[in-house]
Amino acid sequence: MEFNIAFIGFGVVGQGLAEILIEQEEFLKKNYDFHFKVVAVSDTMKGSWYKRTGLDLKKLLALVKENGNLKGYGEGIEGWDSLKTIEETNANLILEVAWTDLKTGEPAITHVKTALKNKKHVVLTNKGPIALAVRELLDLAKKNGVEMRYEGTVLSGTPALNLGLNNLAGAGITKAMGIVNGTTNYILTEMEKGMSYEDALKQAQELGYAEADPTADVEGFDALGKIVILANTVMGANLSKDEPPCEGITKITAEDIVKAKEEGFRWKLIAGAEIKKDGSIDAYVRPEKIPLTHPLANIMGPTNALTYSTKYVSDVTIVGPGAGKLPTGFALLTDILDINRLVSKR
Amino acid sequence: MEFNIAFIGFGVVGQGLAEILIEQEEFLKKNYDFHFKVVAVSDTMKGSWYKRTGLDLKKLLALVKENGNLKGYGEGIEGWDSLKTIEETNANLILEVAWTDLKTGEPAITHVKTALKNKKHVVLTNKGPIALAVRELLDLAKKNGVEMRYEGTVLSGTPALNLGLNNLAGAGITKAMGIVNGTTNYILTEMEKGMSYEDALKQAQELGYAEADPTADVEGFDALGKIVILANTVMGANLSKDEPPCEGITKITAEDIVKAKEEGFRWKLIAGAEIKKDGSIDAYVRPEKIPLTHPLANIMGPTNALTYSTKYVSDVTIVGPGAGKLPTGFALLTDILDINRLVSKR
Repeated sequence: MEFNIAFIGFGVVGQGLAEILIEQEEFLKKNYDFHFKVVAVSDTMKGSWYKRTGLDLKKLLALVKENGNLKGYGEGIEGWDSLKTIEETNANLILEVAWTDLKTGEPAITHVKTALKNKKHVVLTNKGPIALAVRELLDLAKKNGVEMRYEGTVLSGTPALNLGLNNLAGAGITKAMGIVNGTTNYILTEMEKGMSYEDALKQAQELGYAEADPTADVEGFDALGKIVILANTVMGANLSKDEPPCEGITKITAEDIVKAKEEGFRWKLIAGAEIKKDGSIDAYVRPEKIPLTHPLANIMGPTNALTYSTKYVSDVTIVGPGAGKLPTGFALLTDILDINRLVSKR
Repeated sequence: MEFNIAFIGFGVVGQGLAEILIEQEEFLKKNYDFHFKVVAVSDTMKGSWYKRTGLDLKKLLALVKENGNLKGYGEGIEGWDSLKTIEETNANLILEVAWTDLKTGEPAITHVKTALKNKKHVVLTNKGPIALAVRELLDLAKKNGVEMRYEGTVLSGTPALNLGLNNLAGAGITKAMGIVNGTTNYILTEMEKGMSYEDALKQAQELGYAEADPTADVEGFDALGKIVILANTVMGANLSKDEPPCEGITKITAEDIVKAKEEGFRWKLIAGAEIKKDGSIDAYVRPEKIPLTHPLANIMGPTNALTYSTKYVSDVTIVGPGAGKLPTGFALLTDILDINRLVSKR
C-alpha cells in the first residue's frame, strides 16, 4: 500500500520515526510492500510545510537538527496549521505526536477527531486522548472505516498493548501487572546498590529518565495513566484515569529495600489490573514486595515489563524499553505496518 | 467473518482448541466478529465426520474423551479421509494437527499444499512442514490468495513467532536467542536444586514433559528445529534443518551447575540466530553460561523465553509456556483470529 503521511508535531518522537523511515525505506518496501511519502509536517514551534508530491524527509530532519526549526525548507506550501494540514492535505495517515495537555487531552483529541472524520488513519503516542476518550475515538474510527492505533502510549515500542489486543486475543486475559515506569524502576535499582532516594532521583534526572518535576513518575501517576489505558482497551474496563488507587515510591526507604532483599523479595512499583469475580475490573498502582523468583523481580534499571495472566496460555510476560526516541518512534512504525497489513488486504 | 473449519487430526492439540472454541464462542463473536462452524473432523485413528451445516463440537469432544474415538457420532457423512475432507468439504479454514513424520514432513506437507491449492486458509502447529518447506508453502498461499500461519511451531501459544513477524516488523532484528525447549530447562532447574541428571530426566518423563525417548529434547534437536523456523521465517535465512551446529545438555554435570552459580552464572540450553556482518545468518543450539543478571537466566522450570535484539527497540523478551494442550490449542486460535482480522478487512 501507498501512504501519504502527515506529522502533526515534529519533536523527539516524530524525529525518531523519521530517522527509522529514512534508514528502512527500501527494506519496508521490499519486505512489507509498504510505500510512503511524507506530504506534510506541521509543528506549532518549528514551522510547517506541505507538498502534495512529497517532502524530502532527510532535508527536514537535517534542518531541525541544525536550526531547531524547519523555516528554511523552501519547497511547497509553508505555514499551514495542524487542523488545516489534517483536513486539507492529501495525507491519508496522520501521526499525532504534538504536545498535549494531559488534563484535557487537547489539542490532540481535536486533531484525532478531525482526522478520523476526514477518513484518515491515525497513529499516536500521546497518552492524553487515549486515557480520556479512547472509546469515543475508536467508535469514530470504526464509523469512518479507518484505523486508530496507539501502541506507544504504553511501554513505547515494546509491543505490550498489541500483545494484549491482538496476539493474546481470545486467550482469556484475567489480569495484567507490570513495571510500566522506567524512572521509578531505575531509582529503586540504584537504591538497592546503596544510593539514597534523593541521589538516585538526581541521577535519573541527569540521564534524562526523569523530568525536572518528577511528580508524575515518583507518585505513580504516569504508571496509572498506562494501566488505565491497558485496562480500558485490552480488558474492556471503563475506568476514568483518576479513579484507581495510586501510590508512588516516595515512602520506600533504603532500609526497606535491604530488608526485603534479605527476605528474598524486591520492592517494585507495580501497576495492575484484574478482572474480579463479578466481572468488574480493579486497577491500581502501588509498591509491592515481589519474590525474587517472580519474572518481574529481575527487571532492573529503566527496563519495563508486563505480565498477562490468561486462562489458556497461563502467564505471558513481555520485557523491553519503556521510553526513548527510537523505541517510541518505532511504536508509530509498528502501528503503521499493522494498518498496512490490514489495508493491503482490502 | 464466518469460517467453516475442518480439523485434520483430532489429538491433544486439536482437542485443546476445541475446548477453547466451545468456551469462547460467544466472546469471540462479540469481541472479534469471529463466527465459526466446525464442518469436518478427519482423524486416521479416531474416525471422520463431515456435515455441511456444522457438527456439534461438544458432542465430538465428549465422544473422544469417553471412547477415544468418534465412531458413534452418527450425524452427517462418515469416513472421508484427510485429502477428501480438505478438497471436497465446504471448509474454508483447514487446521493441520495430524501426526507427522519429522524427517519427511508428510503427510502434513501434502495436506497443506492441497488446502492452499484449493484456496483454503491453513493453520498448523506441526513443525515438519514449516522446518522443511516454509518458503514453498508461503509462496503457494500467496499465489492462491489465502493465509498460512504456524505460531504454534515455536513456543506453542506464547506469541514468539508473530512477535517477530508482525509486532517487531521493521524494528531491525539482528539476533534472536532463547530457551525454546521446556524439558531441558526443567531438567537443568531440577539439577540446580540437587537432583542428578538421570533423576531429573525421569521426573520430566513422569510429568509428561519428556518423551519415553528423550533424544530430541536432550540432544537439542527440538530446539534446533524451532530456531531454524524462526531464522528462516522471521530473519529471512534459508537454513536447512540439520545445518546449524547443535549440542544438547547431556554433558553438563551437577558440578558444572553448582560452580557456575557460585561464579554468578547459570547454564541454559540456548538456541540462537544472528545476522552476521556479511548479511548471512548463523544459527546454533548449545549450552551457555548466562550471567544471573540476564533476563534468560531467571527463566526456570518448563517455561520458555525468547529475546529479540533489535536496532530500534533494543532487546525485547517474551516469556511464557512452550508446550501443553491448551497453550498449543490457543496457538491455533491466535493465528485464526489474525486471519479473521485480515480477511474481515477485505
